[in-house]
Amino acid sequence: MSTMIKVAILGASGYTGAELVRLLSRHPRVEMTVLTADRRAGRTMGSVFPHLSGLGLPDLVAMETVDYSAVDFVFCALPHGTTQEVVAGLPGSIRVADLSADFRFHDPETYAAWYGHAHMAPDLQKEVVYGLSELARPEIRKARVVACPGCYPTSAQLPLVPLIKSGLIEADGIIIDSKSGVSGAGRAAKEGSLFCEVTEGIHAYGIASHRHAPEIEQGLSLAAGKPVLVNFTPHLMPMNRGILSTIYVRMSEGVAVADLRRTLEGHYAGEPFVRVTPEGVVPQTRHVKGSNFALIGVFADRLPGRAIICSVIDNLVKGASGQAVQNFNLMMGLPETTALEQQPLFP
Amino acid sequence: MSTMIKVAILGASGYTGAELVRLLSRHPRVEMTVLTADRRAGRTMGSVFPHLSGLGLPDLVAMETVDYSAVDFVFCALPHGTTQEVVAGLPGSIRVADLSADFRFHDPETYAAWYGHAHMAPDLQKEVVYGLSELARPEIRKARVVACPGCYPTSAQLPLVPLIKSGLIEADGIIIDSKSGVSGAGRAAKEGSLFCEVTEGIHAYGIASHRHAPEIEQGLSLAAGKPVLVNFTPHLMPMNRGILSTIYVRMSEGVAVADLRRTLEGHYAGEPFVRVTPEGVVPQTRHVKGSNFALIGVFADRLPGRAIICSVIDNLVKGASGQAVQNFNLMMGLPETTALEQQPLFP
Amino acid sequence: MSTMIKVAILGASGYTGAELVRLLSRHPRVEMTVLTADRRAGRTMGSVFPHLSGLGLPDLVAMETVDYSAVDFVFCALPHGTTQEVVAGLPGSIRVADLSADFRFHDPETYAAWYGHAHMAPDLQKEVVYGLSELARPEIRKARVVACPGCYPTSAQLPLVPLIKSGLIEADGIIIDSKSGVSGAGRAAKEGSLFCEVTEGIHAYGIASHRHAPEIEQGLSLAAGKPVLVNFTPHLMPMNRGILSTIYVRMSEGVAVADLRRTLEGHYAGEPFVRVTPEGVVPQTRHVKGSNFALIGVFADRLPGRAIICSVIDNLVKGASGQAVQNFNLMMGLPETTALEQQPLFP
Amino acid sequence: MSTMIKVAILGASGYTGAELVRLLSRHPRVEMTVLTADRRAGRTMGSVFPHLSGLGLPDLVAMETVDYSAVDFVFCALPHGTTQEVVAGLPGSIRVADLSADFRFHDPETYAAWYGHAHMAPDLQKEVVYGLSELARPEIRKARVVACPGCYPTSAQLPLVPLIKSGLIEADGIIIDSKSGVSGAGRAAKEGSLFCEVTEGIHAYGIASHRHAPEIEQGLSLAAGKPVLVNFTPHLMPMNRGILSTIYVRMSEGVAVADLRRTLEGHYAGEPFVRVTPEGVVPQTRHVKGSNFALIGVFADRLPGRAIICSVIDNLVKGASGQAVQNFNLMMGLPETTALEQQPLFP
Repeated sequence: MSTMIKVAILGASGYTGAELVRLLSRHPRVEMTVLTADRRAGRTMGSVFPHLSGLGLPDLVAMETVDYSAVDFVFCALPHGTTQEVVAGLPGSIRVADLSADFRFHDPETYAAWYGHAHMAPDLQKEVVYGLSELARPEIRKARVVACPGCYPTSAQLPLVPLIKSGLIEADGIIIDSKSGVSGAGRAAKEGSLFCEVTEGIHAYGIASHRHAPEIEQGLSLAAGKPVLVNFTPHLMPMNRGILSTIYVRMSEGVAVADLRRTLEGHYAGEPFVRVTPEGVVPQTRHVKGSNFALIGVFADRLPGRAIICSVIDNLVKGASGQAVQNFNLMMGLPETTALEQQPLFP
Repeated sequence: MSTMIKVAILGASGYTGAELVRLLSRHPRVEMTVLTADRRAGRTMGSVFPHLSGLGLPDLVAMETVDYSAVDFVFCALPHGTTQEVVAGLPGSIRVADLSADFRFHDPETYAAWYGHAHMAPDLQKEVVYGLSELARPEIRKARVVACPGCYPTSAQLPLVPLIKSGLIEADGIIIDSKSGVSGAGRAAKEGSLFCEVTEGIHAYGIASHRHAPEIEQGLSLAAGKPVLVNFTPHLMPMNRGILSTIYVRMSEGVAVADLRRTLEGHYAGEPFVRVTPEGVVPQTRHVKGSNFALIGVFADRLPGRAIICSVIDNLVKGASGQAVQNFNLMMGLPETTALEQQPLFP
Repeated sequence: MSTMIKVAILGASGYTGAELVRLLSRHPRVEMTVLTADRRAGRTMGSVFPHLSGLGLPDLVAMETVDYSAVDFVFCALPHGTTQEVVAGLPGSIRVADLSADFRFHDPETYAAWYGHAHMAPDLQKEVVYGLSELARPEIRKARVVACPGCYPTSAQLPLVPLIKSGLIEADGIIIDSKSGVSGAGRAAKEGSLFCEVTEGIHAYGIASHRHAPEIEQGLSLAAGKPVLVNFTPHLMPMNRGILSTIYVRMSEGVAVADLRRTLEGHYAGEPFVRVTPEGVVPQTRHVKGSNFALIGVFADRLPGRAIICSVIDNLVKGASGQAVQNFNLMMGLPETTALEQQPLFP
Repeated sequence: MSTMIKVAILGASGYTGAELVRLLSRHPRVEMTVLTADRRAGRTMGSVFPHLSGLGLPDLVAMETVDYSAVDFVFCALPHGTTQEVVAGLPGSIRVADLSADFRFHDPETYAAWYGHAHMAPDLQKEVVYGLSELARPEIRKARVVACPGCYPTSAQLPLVPLIKSGLIEADGIIIDSKSGVSGAGRAAKEGSLFCEVTEGIHAYGIASHRHAPEIEQGLSLAAGKPVLVNFTPHLMPMNRGILSTIYVRMSEGVAVADLRRTLEGHYAGEPFVRVTPEGVVPQTRHVKGSNFALIGVFADRLPGRAIICSVIDNLVKGASGQAVQNFNLMMGLPETTALEQQPLFP
């Protein structure tokens, strides 16, 4: 029998932490030995998240009490800003999948410009791999620290990076209109996340100023080989899970929508988690709920030379904890789909 | 005391019909004398819509039994396609506010191309006024038949027509990403409108093929003085009421976002129902729920030279029955806000 | 023309405060001259509640800055516990409708037992009238201070008090299973009120310990002329507004369900806001949403000698602000339905 | 390696059929060889339920075309009333888990009285086992045909049967107030299941006349050893999945709430899917969503001698397809939890 990999989850009392526990509880090679949650230290996971009762988990502990000598791998699900120092302080022998934004930017200056303070671990940043699993598999396998992409950037880059690289679409003037469920805002008690403030309505937020814009631009710029700006407009809507990015692009001269679909189908052929929907089939967020799948649909626009891409994921799975587990599998040389096989939950 | 205006509502058993009843029940000059609903003929309105019990309404009757001699005004809330013949068959002395799409196109050929059959009342079409209240007040006042705009076209044209007319934005390449509540699909029992198929998710539909696209294009083409095509992508999301149109536009050379806001503020100054939100304030659909208000916000884009407009209405009020009542008030020489004064319901 | 009544709303930044503003904005005899909100002092009401923009309201102020010399009537929508001292400190010439629990108990000892501290205005308590409008109209008309009932107690007492008084049901062993929307929890940012914690599920809370239990028992004890205990089990469910109380009662010897319905119909005949549904028609909370209506249905049980009562209200209207306005109308000698005429909003 | 069990699912295009597919797709010993759906025959499962794409499933076929020679086991998820003849017509060598109500009543007369027509397979009925897994394990193991319990009866009998058998509670006068999500109504396009008719509200239905009442009574009568009537009042509320039954019981003389909890804990100790919550912890439907778990909480009532039980399940899993798979595992001698191990999905 194979040995178990001892895993610590830092920040287990948030939604992404809980989602890591949910997924890893089915992982045949993982033993969760450490769960941290500073404000809830001393409590059981089942008292904080009753749906995770009965799993034989260790109690929640404060982060400063963790003994890392019995930890092989760390999932870091801490808030943005606090993560850099934590990860920098871990023993160098421990591999890390970080779910925060703290290590997503190749250029610490970009981080500083958007997050309001200097990067606190610029040296470590140099060795971090940006872990959009399907687009950086070889690098992820070898990385010690992987920065897992944001939820919106995952939904946007999966279709756009291959299309830009192929030269089929113009990298300039891309418009990304995204719609997100509320779990993306986390479990913090904020007025804007209250049921009555969110249900029965929709609104845009962070217009032209959301921190996922530069993350998307970083990926598209690399793909295009030149600096790219995008319009990115997120919306908050009443659902627990799910992101739909409706993306408006201009095709290159002589390119047809069928070319876009064919290229994406080719690029993702054989991928276990990314699917291009058949012509005319519109992806729905509810069709990936609870799963690590991404669905991409490509459609002709009424405006000549333009196309519309619909990209859906579950923000807590492929947009966060699922992709982190996928990266963990890659990093540890395990089958990539381990613990991620379950089908979406519908209705 | 003023005499009462005798009103018939054709198609009272749908959501827009019920909304007409809700609004008109508070109208001091209206007596609802006829309510039709073919499949529910003989029933009380309160048995079909319990929230409308106790209003002293006449029972529902089949359309062919209506005696129009005691009717001064008809609100027609029938399905698309069946309306043309009904309205053409009404006595010429009766004024009409039609909520269907049947008379919205100046050119019967456009209707035929999008609705799949020849227009059945092309002569009558010539005298119909397209009734976006704020943009066609003088014509509406004099019209015998007013075609009330669709819900999406109302949300799109309110901000776009003045901006195009003013030359501040380019009429080409406009992208309209709209999100709608489920009541827009009506009360018909369709699998796609079931709770379980709609809640906890979002999806686009009618991509590049929705029938409200040519209606929007008609209005924008008139404003631009040249043919205009738009991208219009509607989405269905889990809420009862509300439409948000997030609109992506290119500004003309030298124009700034502040110019757009100032122009819209000027255009709608003094309007009772259309408001431009202050700089930085994002309109939410839930802030117009149940009311005839439209809110418009204007925002700078990250892409130079571009702007983002958020336009929200309640699809059943300003997007349907409320605007019909507003037009009724205009046509009958009554104060425009009569029966439309109530504030939105939040939460 | 009649003079305007100058009204202060203390605690205007909560949901019940906002609902008071929504309703009173249509009241022809009310001028809202003072709106308090300590943490939001200095802001406009429209910035705190965008759906209440454009009403020409005064800005929010801190409570200690209010000059009561220009105030005729106070609506007090402050949190439980802080209200007693505030109301006791008001000039004796000002009449008050209080929406908190602070003055609902005739016996200050009951208050102390359930709210954890001694009553702070026991002398004032003696002159306070418990304001379930339909059941205490004469006393409310003359009262200086009216304690408006809680939402659950309103839904429970409306059907139960007449039935107990008439002797048709046993006062012992009544079971009240109530289901409430989330607005009842107020606008405070609490984890338990977050969208993700409330949507897609239901749970009981405050089992056998909710503070509305003694309030219901007070009313039923008075009706029965002896001490009465009830089972009251509230549940939190994903909707903005609405309370359904499903009430299980034993009928007195020889009584039939038709007797219960007939008695309630007789008791509420002519009442503008309370309706008994026809036999077989089940009340739904959505059929009173946004209105001051209460619907009561009575049904036979499978268990011999027992009956089931369904009672629905909008917790923010008849369960709070609407009943407060109704009481205001009674206290000021105005038509009782003023500003409360609007129909429910459905869907 | 073990041979695969060839499974047919009759009625695969409904929600319970889809849920069977979702669960069985993870079952290492199952090969789904036949999926029937008469109106959708010829289509792929992925076109009917996009969340079940990519599973390598056979296309949907009409029921009369099925060749049962290559089928080992049938899951029957057909509508009530049509199932009796279908199951009676299957080869006697095939074992069956039936999800309809058609074989749930030991006495065909009870079926006839509640379903409006004579039982069509009374001989077969004699050998059918009522399959509440935890309560009839030995019989289920040996059965050829198992009638899987209804969703409400599962939630009610799990706590009540052991308590009645133990004599701790009175079998008379039990009140079961149940709240269900909308998926229980199936995927049929009915007005009452439309999003707009269900969201933002709650209502009782089938008061004293729901067909699950006699099913519950059958189980409780057997437990009590005498005929038992119950009050059962179901409510429809806006959530996809979940049933909460709040149950009001009288305890036998001298019994305390702690006795009830201790007895249930003892009865379900070691059960993989049934859990009694710790004292003071209230079960929530969202904490079992997507899983086969049942949670039971026991609470003291304010009324002396009475107790309150909260019982929650996912109606599509433990209340339907999950329990069917659990029974399949029992019948085939497989580990009972196979394919049912996944944790609930929250949020």
